[in-house]
Amino acid sequence: MSTKKGSEKELLWQSRFSEPFDREALLFSSSVDVDKALYQEDIKGSIAHVTMLSEEAILPVEEARLIIEGLEEIEQEISSGALVPDWEDEDIHTVIENRLKEKIGPIAGKMHSGRSRNDQVATDTRLYLKRTIDELRSALDALKSLLLEKAETYRHTIIFGYTHLQRAQPISAGHYYLSYFNMFLRDNQRLDDLFKRVDISPLGAAAFAGSTLQLNAQRSMELLDFSTLFENSIDAVSDRDIIIEFISACSIIMMHLSRFCEDLILWSSSEFNYLEISDAFATGSSIMPQKKNADIAELVRGKTGRVYGDLINILTIMKGLPLSYNRDMQEDKPPLFDAAKSTISSVRIFSKMLAHTKLNEERLTKLTAEDLSLSTEIAEYLVRKNLPFRDAHRITGKIVSHAIESATSLPNIPLETYRSFSELFDSDLYDALQPEASVNTKQSHGSTSFSSVDEQIKNARKKLNR
Amino acid sequence: MSTKKGSEKELLWQSRFSEPFDREALLFSSSVDVDKALYQEDIKGSIAHVTMLSEEAILPVEEARLIIEGLEEIEQEISSGALVPDWEDEDIHTVIENRLKEKIGPIAGKMHSGRSRNDQVATDTRLYLKRTIDELRSALDALKSLLLEKAETYRHTIIFGYTHLQRAQPISAGHYYLSYFNMFLRDNQRLDDLFKRVDISPLGAAAFAGSTLQLNAQRSMELLDFSTLFENSIDAVSDRDIIIEFISACSIIMMHLSRFCEDLILWSSSEFNYLEISDAFATGSSIMPQKKNADIAELVRGKTGRVYGDLINILTIMKGLPLSYNRDMQEDKPPLFDAAKSTISSVRIFSKMLAHTKLNEERLTKLTAEDLSLSTEIAEYLVRKNLPFRDAHRITGKIVSHAIESATSLPNIPLETYRSFSELFDSDLYDALQPEASVNTKQSHGSTSFSSVDEQIKNARKKLNR
Amino acid sequence: MSTKKGSEKELLWQSRFSEPFDREALLFSSSVDVDKALYQEDIKGSIAHVTMLSEEAILPVEEARLIIEGLEEIEQEISSGALVPDWEDEDIHTVIENRLKEKIGPIAGKMHSGRSRNDQVATDTRLYLKRTIDELRSALDALKSLLLEKAETYRHTIIFGYTHLQRAQPISAGHYYLSYFNMFLRDNQRLDDLFKRVDISPLGAAAFAGSTLQLNAQRSMELLDFSTLFENSIDAVSDRDIIIEFISACSIIMMHLSRFCEDLILWSSSEFNYLEISDAFATGSSIMPQKKNADIAELVRGKTGRVYGDLINILTIMKGLPLSYNRDMQEDKPPLFDAAKSTISSVRIFSKMLAHTKLNEERLTKLTAEDLSLSTEIAEYLVRKNLPFRDAHRITGKIVSHAIESATSLPNIPLETYRSFSELFDSDLYDALQPEASVNTKQSHGSTSFSSVDEQIKNARKKLNR
Amino acid sequence: MSTKKGSEKELLWQSRFSEPFDREALLFSSSVDVDKALYQEDIKGSIAHVTMLSEEAILPVEEARLIIEGLEEIEQEISSGALVPDWEDEDIHTVIENRLKEKIGPIAGKMHSGRSRNDQVATDTRLYLKRTIDELRSALDALKSLLLEKAETYRHTIIFGYTHLQRAQPISAGHYYLSYFNMFLRDNQRLDDLFKRVDISPLGAAAFAGSTLQLNAQRSMELLDFSTLFENSIDAVSDRDIIIEFISACSIIMMHLSRFCEDLILWSSSEFNYLEISDAFATGSSIMPQKKNADIAELVRGKTGRVYGDLINILTIMKGLPLSYNRDMQEDKPPLFDAAKSTISSVRIFSKMLAHTKLNEERLTKLTAEDLSLSTEIAEYLVRKNLPFRDAHRITGKIVSHAIESATSLPNIPLETYRSFSELFDSDLYDALQPEASVNTKQSHGSTSFSSVDEQIKNARKKLNR
Repeated sequence: MSTKKGSEKELLWQSRFSEPFDREALLFSSSVDVDKALYQEDIKGSIAHVTMLSEEAILPVEEARLIIEGLEEIEQEISSGALVPDWEDEDIHTVIENRLKEKIGPIAGKMHSGRSRNDQVATDTRLYLKRTIDELRSALDALKSLLLEKAETYRHTIIFGYTHLQRAQPISAGHYYLSYFNMFLRDNQRLDDLFKRVDISPLGAAAFAGSTLQLNAQRSMELLDFSTLFENSIDAVSDRDIIIEFISACSIIMMHLSRFCEDLILWSSSEFNYLEISDAFATGSSIMPQKKNADIAELVRGKTGRVYGDLINILTIMKGLPLSYNRDMQEDKPPLFDAAKSTISSVRIFSKMLAHTKLNEERLTKLTAEDLSLSTEIAEYLVRKNLPFRDAHRITGKIVSHAIESATSLPNIPLETYRSFSELFDSDLYDALQPEASVNTKQSHGSTSFSSVDEQIKNARKKLNR
Repeated sequence: MSTKKGSEKELLWQSRFSEPFDREALLFSSSVDVDKALYQEDIKGSIAHVTMLSEEAILPVEEARLIIEGLEEIEQEISSGALVPDWEDEDIHTVIENRLKEKIGPIAGKMHSGRSRNDQVATDTRLYLKRTIDELRSALDALKSLLLEKAETYRHTIIFGYTHLQRAQPISAGHYYLSYFNMFLRDNQRLDDLFKRVDISPLGAAAFAGSTLQLNAQRSMELLDFSTLFENSIDAVSDRDIIIEFISACSIIMMHLSRFCEDLILWSSSEFNYLEISDAFATGSSIMPQKKNADIAELVRGKTGRVYGDLINILTIMKGLPLSYNRDMQEDKPPLFDAAKSTISSVRIFSKMLAHTKLNEERLTKLTAEDLSLSTEIAEYLVRKNLPFRDAHRITGKIVSHAIESATSLPNIPLETYRSFSELFDSDLYDALQPEASVNTKQSHGSTSFSSVDEQIKNARKKLNR
Repeated sequence: MSTKKGSEKELLWQSRFSEPFDREALLFSSSVDVDKALYQEDIKGSIAHVTMLSEEAILPVEEARLIIEGLEEIEQEISSGALVPDWEDEDIHTVIENRLKEKIGPIAGKMHSGRSRNDQVATDTRLYLKRTIDELRSALDALKSLLLEKAETYRHTIIFGYTHLQRAQPISAGHYYLSYFNMFLRDNQRLDDLFKRVDISPLGAAAFAGSTLQLNAQRSMELLDFSTLFENSIDAVSDRDIIIEFISACSIIMMHLSRFCEDLILWSSSEFNYLEISDAFATGSSIMPQKKNADIAELVRGKTGRVYGDLINILTIMKGLPLSYNRDMQEDKPPLFDAAKSTISSVRIFSKMLAHTKLNEERLTKLTAEDLSLSTEIAEYLVRKNLPFRDAHRITGKIVSHAIESATSLPNIPLETYRSFSELFDSDLYDALQPEASVNTKQSHGSTSFSSVDEQIKNARKKLNR
Repeated sequence: MSTKKGSEKELLWQSRFSEPFDREALLFSSSVDVDKALYQEDIKGSIAHVTMLSEEAILPVEEARLIIEGLEEIEQEISSGALVPDWEDEDIHTVIENRLKEKIGPIAGKMHSGRSRNDQVATDTRLYLKRTIDELRSALDALKSLLLEKAETYRHTIIFGYTHLQRAQPISAGHYYLSYFNMFLRDNQRLDDLFKRVDISPLGAAAFAGSTLQLNAQRSMELLDFSTLFENSIDAVSDRDIIIEFISACSIIMMHLSRFCEDLILWSSSEFNYLEISDAFATGSSIMPQKKNADIAELVRGKTGRVYGDLINILTIMKGLPLSYNRDMQEDKPPLFDAAKSTISSVRIFSKMLAHTKLNEERLTKLTAEDLSLSTEIAEYLVRKNLPFRDAHRITGKIVSHAIESATSLPNIPLETYRSFSELFDSDLYDALQPEASVNTKQSHGSTSFSSVDEQIKNARKKLNR
């Protein structure tokens, strides 16, 4: 089953044109392959419009019924695969309209009374965005929920905190997972804020100047579950800022994921070896049998480029376009759909992979206990003994150099050696040279101490269940 | 007056290093030229921190007083030009600290107790962003206010509405200005939403793990007029999403301006000639005496590239960085400052230029009265006489072709000619063939009719004065 | 016909893995949908490799024959649609290998002797790029050829030259078309330069370290029509700079097209009305019967964003990746293929549309004759009479103001009026106030005078036929 | 010393304007702060133009002499700091012209005979690009030279080759350094190709249509050491593709550096610990005495964003601009200068840092000898004993699992254990299980074997000295 081909049809707008539209040009300008993703939104929008028209007695009830039933059948036909959109139909709106004409004849055209392609597409896009933002928020919620779980599981596991990719100070692994929780929480908030700007019905703006019919835009809005109504018909059809804002929010999400992926890739390297990714989410090599690669993390990191590219795409399209609608804007959908798909699938697969990782706790316990990152504790020990910080730092620097040269760890240096650097050292020093002790000396708000992490988990759980 | 040179100083962190830092490397890594813009925020942040420290008895009151007085003097010295930041001091924080040491000796170092460069810079950046967002919101408010004025002045002036840069339908010029009002209104809302995410104190996060001191982060927050406190110390120092979100919001503002500029450039061309830019905002040519160029509009349009570039800059920097702080992040400030400056100055100069434009009302009145864009009225006239839309469109197409061939305008075609196309035409057709009549047939919500525009202006004024 | 499903197969690299690869992860990481475009290159590369292996006696002749025949059949199967690549096969290479195994059994695996997925993909990509660059060069050649035709047709047609979108000086339309000829000529040169860097065989680099087999890389290179051989096996498989360089060259082409489109859109507006686009390449409006939109030009201009986005995509992917291969790099193909397709189709459809445009010569002749852009001639007339340029400019400025106020054109101002501005004017002034005279006073190299344009056309023709 | 202020001057082009240019608009549009970098090029261009004018008897010899001497003095004044460009002078060209007028009076204006700001700026930009490309090529040459040195020093040092950041196979460190040599070699070639397109004189194109004077463009070209002459005056002043191509080449260089930096940062982490960066190029932490950060590598990696941003900046500026010159194009210089400076300084400081690194050979020797990355050798051993590769891979996989579980290394597994996996193993296996043996089994072209690396070094040296 297929609608009649474009080449066989007379296009309405060609009434004063003497030549048919070039077929290659039609192929170039056809957007069906992309905007067929909007078929449900398009049908939903048309049904709402037609319902309003009949309620307002602009369209006879019987005709409205015919149109709506036809549209409902078409939705079935497309979702079942019985009706396959054809590029020659130019766009999904025409696919649907032509099929409706086959079913109910010229009455089909009346579903466009008081409506233009411009407000129709704007409506479809906003409905699509609402659905998509919801999907993305759900995916982020699941990720945040998993992060809370990880934070709880590992709240007493001590890992290295890094700056400049150098071991800096021991921290609670729970604290680490919570830092990502907070990033994705802000990502959610951004989507919430954007949602308000998306949740506005543009239906009734017509081509850009409004309609001569007494449309009830308020009613169409309600039928489509929008919360507010557009203010200005030109703006309603000619701006694309919500698409840019959406892809920008996706870019930040991908940036956050790319950092998390970088950490996972590093931690699952032989050199770090802090984390095990389950075999179900790693790949091997057909010629190097020892390898286990974090491919999924690499692919997600790579997809960041894709979403950044989508952002530049739509920003470039819109730059310098005169008001109101220009055909360039048809090109808004490829970056929108691509960014949505890339980001949602990345959040989901990343979460699934993350769920299949576990920290090598034994190794981490051993390494953190021996590491020079405890040297801060020495400096602070000396400060507690009233040595000026600058002097404490200098002495500690010398001890660190000694440890490196002697290839030993700080807790293994004997007290007499410490005392050769400063008389202030005493045996209580060794109490401080424990990773757990170090972590728990951090008493400030939001810090890595176990009690602070517990508190953070409690607060995070509240935010998750808001 | 200048602080001691970097080459003469021992850098604290070099205690265990055997070689001094390379001078070229220091030059390459010095950020003073850029971050000197933060000197006020940096001093404000230090004063708040030191005040809190003394209130919590971590720092003796007398020492706190010395530090604060010294910092206040230094702010004076920098703002008066007496103290010129030197690149050898690496960054503005070191400039200030070194100068303070000259003034009060080693006590100066105590202003860093429980604070790291990481939370210090994060605090400075957030204070800077709060101030900058306020400036930008004010600039947008002024522009929106001007647009309302324009909308009122020209609400009964009829211009062409365009799609595809083709005259489409006559509209009220007030409607046109209001469409931009709505764009900049959303830009403001975006900044409001962002502001909540910026208005969070990171002070107390220290390097990334928190501090061993009993800091009162809540108190520092209040002293700095932040509304909320960070949740997680790692996240507080290692994320830069608010910078990306800010530059993204700037990019959308610039996109809106670039479209407005395009319109102004077109409208002030000889061919359009709809708009006069005052001599004070146009330039001429030294060899083509007849020219009057809309340079300011062109420059603003060009600056769009700059802000888009800043966005890609910061997105690229952050991609794939492991947690927590990495030195790459120092490069966040050039795009932030550049985007802020470019956007604020563009909004301001654009507004000033726009205030110095006036529509060529006489010409517009004449042109809209004669134009084929009234042809929609003919089609709708026939529809009102119960002709199916498709037939009405076809007949109108033929009349348009006739008008083009005869080089006449629609109102000048005699009735008998109209009737040769369709018997349905009558003399009341000419009432419809008036731009004002056309505009006022649009009765739908948010449309271009005079009454709708009046209503929109009323609503807009409320939003402006919120 | 289809190969066995991934879920049913044991993947070679999983020999030491205890769990199967997650199906969602497989879906996420599968690249078949994209890289199936490479099936011909992949088969060509495998045949060359196997031929070399058998010539070097690494593979028995008979086995090589079986493999090659099988591959040739598979190419037929895919191109005829009999074999449809399945996403579960992960990538096109696996699709082909699995199908070959169905045909000839385990011998199929021997086509990978001494070869890794890494040098295989690098080879495919380079073969693809060579073919694609050739297509793009042909498309550009056709466009340049058309531009030369246009330049010849319109070399004596006078149009306005613009700066700042203000009429600046009359020029030959031929000169205008030649300016674009020169831009696309440079685009071709860039592709020629790039081609040298693409035309290098990476086959034999294996995973990245080379192979233990005595491969004859020189021979594979010859069999695949590459001109040179890679130097370093790590570089051969881990760099993607030729993809970036290609998309960058495409970006510049699109930028050139976007400017040309902008000109066409402007020139076909009612206000300019300098150019007619044939009905076959314009669209109308279903509700505004008078409209004729330059949709194709708008779409091409819009596609610029797409290619810029592809450039940022691949640049972001590659930023900061450690050597050598990382899975992120699999994401290089979507931007590569998209940029190639977008650019080639844009050049082609743009050319076809351009061929269907004609200048409104009558209108241009009339307008250029009356326009103030001839004022430069007045200034130069006065300079020829030995008035200092500054004074000549000032007097001309006053005359221009007079013409604007009197709503007249320069050739229509009577001599006495001219003489009221300066005694130096005489009746020979009117000879200079002709567009053609103005154009032909430009005697410098490469200028707009008819003789210069003729010369330029002659030179351009030589370059076209190189 | 300073030239007269803009506000005090009458601007030539304002002759028919009734209002002075707005001061804020002047500030916004002034480009002096940026284009003052072009003062030498601007003076050089003017001297060549004036020399040509006097040779062609368009300008009296004496006047030419006055102008040239004045310009030479001004160059001295600017380079010595005696003349400080003032923003009110709008751009560097006006700074110089105004100062020349102060010196020699109105004759100064004659240096613009037959020349416009448009071809003047185009000339300056091309002279600047030629100089800059040369600087960048020199910087790359120095880096390549250093890489050759490193390759020679470490050609027999064995390190890990990575894919997916997993140890894959042992390689020669020389091979590794040579891979970067090849990347930077291609970067050089790209600059060479670009240079041809830059080395074209645009002088004589005037505003865009050519000049009425009999200029000798060939002569100006020679005087400025350009190799070719522009073909078309419109193209000569209105295209910016060489700037885009340059920044694109810089982007690829930065991408290469960002990868190298990533490697250095990883290798100097505690976990890898393969490389020591000298204290002169590392920084420490004021609160974590054990740290040694690779800040310079991080900063260079971060600057990648800056150059990518510059690329998007100029691409966005040029998108959709109508011919010929538009003021937006003035914004081409910030990204050009910024990309040039960022890239050249990054290449230089990176090279200097790289020179101050050394591999931890002892540790690398130990680690590579014990590592599982030798497992490929086991599989190949079995293949040499005629086991099918698939079986060899499976057996090796099991041995690898055994080694991991027993926490032992491959060379330490006793023969009887090997034989429990396969009877084919014999004591000669241990010969293969040596990193050096593994490296030297790679006999294919361009591989990592010592002999291949020696050959590559020889070839590279030839290319360096071309």
